[in-house]
Amino acid sequence: MSLTPYLTPPYYVVIFSSRRTPGDNGYGAMADRMGRLAAQQPGYLGFESVRNADGIGVTLSYWDSPESIRAWKDQAEHTVAQEIGLTRWYEHYEVRVARVERAYSGPGDARHPTAWDIAD
Amino acid sequence: MSLTPYLTPPYYVVIFSSRRTPGDNGYGAMADRMGRLAAQQPGYLGFESVRNADGIGVTLSYWDSPESIRAWKDQAEHTVAQEIGLTRWYEHYEVRVARVERAYSGPGDARHPTAWDIAD
Repeated sequence: MSLTPYLTPPYYVVIFSSRRTPGDNGYGAMADRMGRLAAQQPGYLGFESVRNADGIGVTLSYWDSPESIRAWKDQAEHTVAQEIGLTRWYEHYEVRVARVERAYSGPGDARHPTAWDIAD
Repeated sequence: MSLTPYLTPPYYVVIFSSRRTPGDNGYGAMADRMGRLAAQQPGYLGFESVRNADGIGVTLSYWDSPESIRAWKDQAEHTVAQEIGLTRWYEHYEVRVARVERAYSGPGDARHPTAWDIAD
């Protein structure tokens, strides 16, 4: 997986932090499918997903607006995946929707802000 | 690592997505130290950090306000760690500061919202 490059704020992020159940149980194939589907949604800006060996993971998806997030939440196949996730794949998860207000990059990307002042 | 439990919005999150250089080079000990220091900062609400086997990682820290984030960014030891990170530990990173506007939990936590309507 690669990092989602710098995007100019403001935009939105869905933070999905989860603890997986043991075993795959069809999860990997569905996660790949959902990643491809999300990328086709209007307002999609990017995606990052990482998981520790102990089953704790964080998936970040970036969007242009709350309306785009809502449309993805309600997408038909994604709704089915969410229902299976609730009963089979996740012991627990926390979902957070946040508005990105500031961003910077470093090192190796001189095109974008590399320092930032939260109090400006 | 455990998940940061549900927190009532609004609050703030720093999303640190990174690609590590090969080898430890003192990173693990410093990361542990920074985690402990962050937890002692005013306004600290929680912390999650995960990394794939390929070196891509996401660290999330939760805070009560932008001012608390700013104070942590400027904390003396943390400033030193950031400088070493820039030259030694990270091939690249993206930092995003975001305001958490909505959140829900599931399954296994009946005390908190388990559904949510972004358009309410």
